[in-house]
Amino acid sequence: MSGGWLEEIKWGPDGLVPAIAQDAETGRVLMVAWMNREALAQTAATGHAVYWSRSRGKLWRKGESSGHQQRVREVRLDCDGDVVLLAVEQKGGIACHTGRESCFYRRLDGDRWETVEAVVKDPEQIYG
Amino acid sequence: MSGGWLEEIKWGPDGLVPAIAQDAETGRVLMVAWMNREALAQTAATGHAVYWSRSRGKLWRKGESSGHQQRVREVRLDCDGDVVLLAVEQKGGIACHTGRESCFYRRLDGDRWETVEAVVKDPEQIYG
Repeated sequence: MSGGWLEEIKWGPDGLVPAIAQDAETGRVLMVAWMNREALAQTAATGHAVYWSRSRGKLWRKGESSGHQQRVREVRLDCDGDVVLLAVEQKGGIACHTGRESCFYRRLDGDRWETVEAVVKDPEQIYG
Repeated sequence: MSGGWLEEIKWGPDGLVPAIAQDAETGRVLMVAWMNREALAQTAATGHAVYWSRSRGKLWRKGESSGHQQRVREVRLDCDGDVVLLAVEQKGGIACHTGRESCFYRRLDGDRWETVEAVVKDPEQIYG
């Protein structure tokens, strides 16, 4: 948990910043989650993405229940120091809890959101 | 400002969601900013990215002072409905106020952030 580099981040009032996971090979944006200091420190130390689950109020080692870990190739920080970008290798090719590659599977088409990506694997098979 | 599609978004307590701008051609993540209902409605209506500036407390038509507009090819929404992803054509090839292509120009190298991208154009020439 030490490290001046963690202090250069502008943590929000809740101690969190958004973290974007991007596929290191394809460039696809896979998901956005949240990190606190410990999540980012553990991500850097282990080389695997660790987030902070706001709903569960605890650290979330991505893949701990799905098996869909994210090996982190690179960690970047934006100009304001308040958003983190990870380049990851997505295990299983599935980042989303719906069983899709990416969480961004809905596209605005006129005045409605269209689901434009197929489920790769049934979530019941992932989490069941 | 009407449109049920805007209601499908889980706006935060401050009425905002983060919006990621990704280069439609290269896949580079260029920046992250915030949107309220009106910003997203205007983005969809005009085809150019409009954000909400938290620091200035008003709508921010990206490029209004820099000239670096973002033409929006696609708007996506994530599974939780609380993050927006834009595929954009970045005018001038510069998204960042520092004069760089992307705001994510710092990379974690051991225990420090290294600046790994050059300034494309001096900000004084952009905003001066």
